[in-house]
Amino acid sequence: MKVKYPYPSINNVVKTHHRFQSQGMYFEDALNLSNEYYRNINKAIIYKKPTPIQVVKVDYPRRSKARIVEAYYQTASTTDYNGIYRGKYIDYEAKETENLSFNFKHISLHQMQHLARIDEQNGLAFVIIFFKKVNRVFLIDIKPFLKLYHDGLKSIKIADFEVLGAEAKIGFSPPIDYLVAVDKLYF
Amino acid sequence: MKVKYPYPSINNVVKTHHRFQSQGMYFEDALNLSNEYYRNINKAIIYKKPTPIQVVKVDYPRRSKARIVEAYYQTASTTDYNGIYRGKYIDYEAKETENLSFNFKHISLHQMQHLARIDEQNGLAFVIIFFKKVNRVFLIDIKPFLKLYHDGLKSIKIADFEVLGAEAKIGFSPPIDYLVAVDKLYF
Repeated sequence: MKVKYPYPSINNVVKTHHRFQSQGMYFEDALNLSNEYYRNINKAIIYKKPTPIQVVKVDYPRRSKARIVEAYYQTASTTDYNGIYRGKYIDYEAKETENLSFNFKHISLHQMQHLARIDEQNGLAFVIIFFKKVNRVFLIDIKPFLKLYHDGLKSIKIADFEVLGAEAKIGFSPPIDYLVAVDKLYF
Repeated sequence: MKVKYPYPSINNVVKTHHRFQSQGMYFEDALNLSNEYYRNINKAIIYKKPTPIQVVKVDYPRRSKARIVEAYYQTASTTDYNGIYRGKYIDYEAKETENLSFNFKHISLHQMQHLARIDEQNGLAFVIIFFKKVNRVFLIDIKPFLKLYHDGLKSIKIADFEVLGAEAKIGFSPPIDYLVAVDKLYF
């Protein structure tokens, strides 16, 4: 896993944006670049949390750094992204789908519970979903999201996101200007 | 690295607390248990971020989960802990020392810069330090911390923490009741 540093060159942002537009870029990378962009202009300080890894065995070869030789990916108990925006704690999970609806099986109960707890504490808690087929990104606050889940729905259609959520513009720089959608949802 | 889940048994908290009192417990574990305690009583939602690891090679043996066979620890570009408390974004770095003063060489410039940026965004940003020799824990807001750093000091003495910071009580449950000190510093 790459760790991105706070000050990428503009060239880097532009290049990777084009890759996102042409479907060759991962949604996660586009979000990471957007967060770098927001940090660069001091709009928000938001990072992706590292993937949790259980380290089992480490070698310490002479004259070189510790080398992990046995480890396993762990299931995250929280969400992918958190930070601060407009003085508020912000926390979200990012998902992508090939379908024209979002199926609840793609998000864990742990993650929904975590977002519900953040909402209770007056943080901004939402899910951001990339619909690959139509190249559209939607945000939905955890409250309507959980309502539909508790209503027994299997999935949420794009048409529902248009009513209940807010669409994030895919643009030049940042690749996904999702804080404009956050403004619409919360401010 | 273990991942802690939101609802540990009380027994677990008590047991590990005793280990902390007798110097056998790591400061990090004591903080993690304190954060579990705070989550259990819905006082705050704060987690330690996973350690960033660069994965180089993964094996996918048949009928078992992906096994990472080459990976390296990376330097964190931000801090160890963040979350939400009293509706505010909270972010801190935890350090421990054998000495009776805290030497600035134990914290990276990246981490100080990150905390300064959180402070600019009106988040709660501080350093929490465990002085092993005297079994005392102090919090200091990033502003006085950085002032002393920019004044050219090499280290900060416990006596200075008593004036500029707030002491966190080491107790029964949670092991380190540091949010009381956060209240003193910020609320």
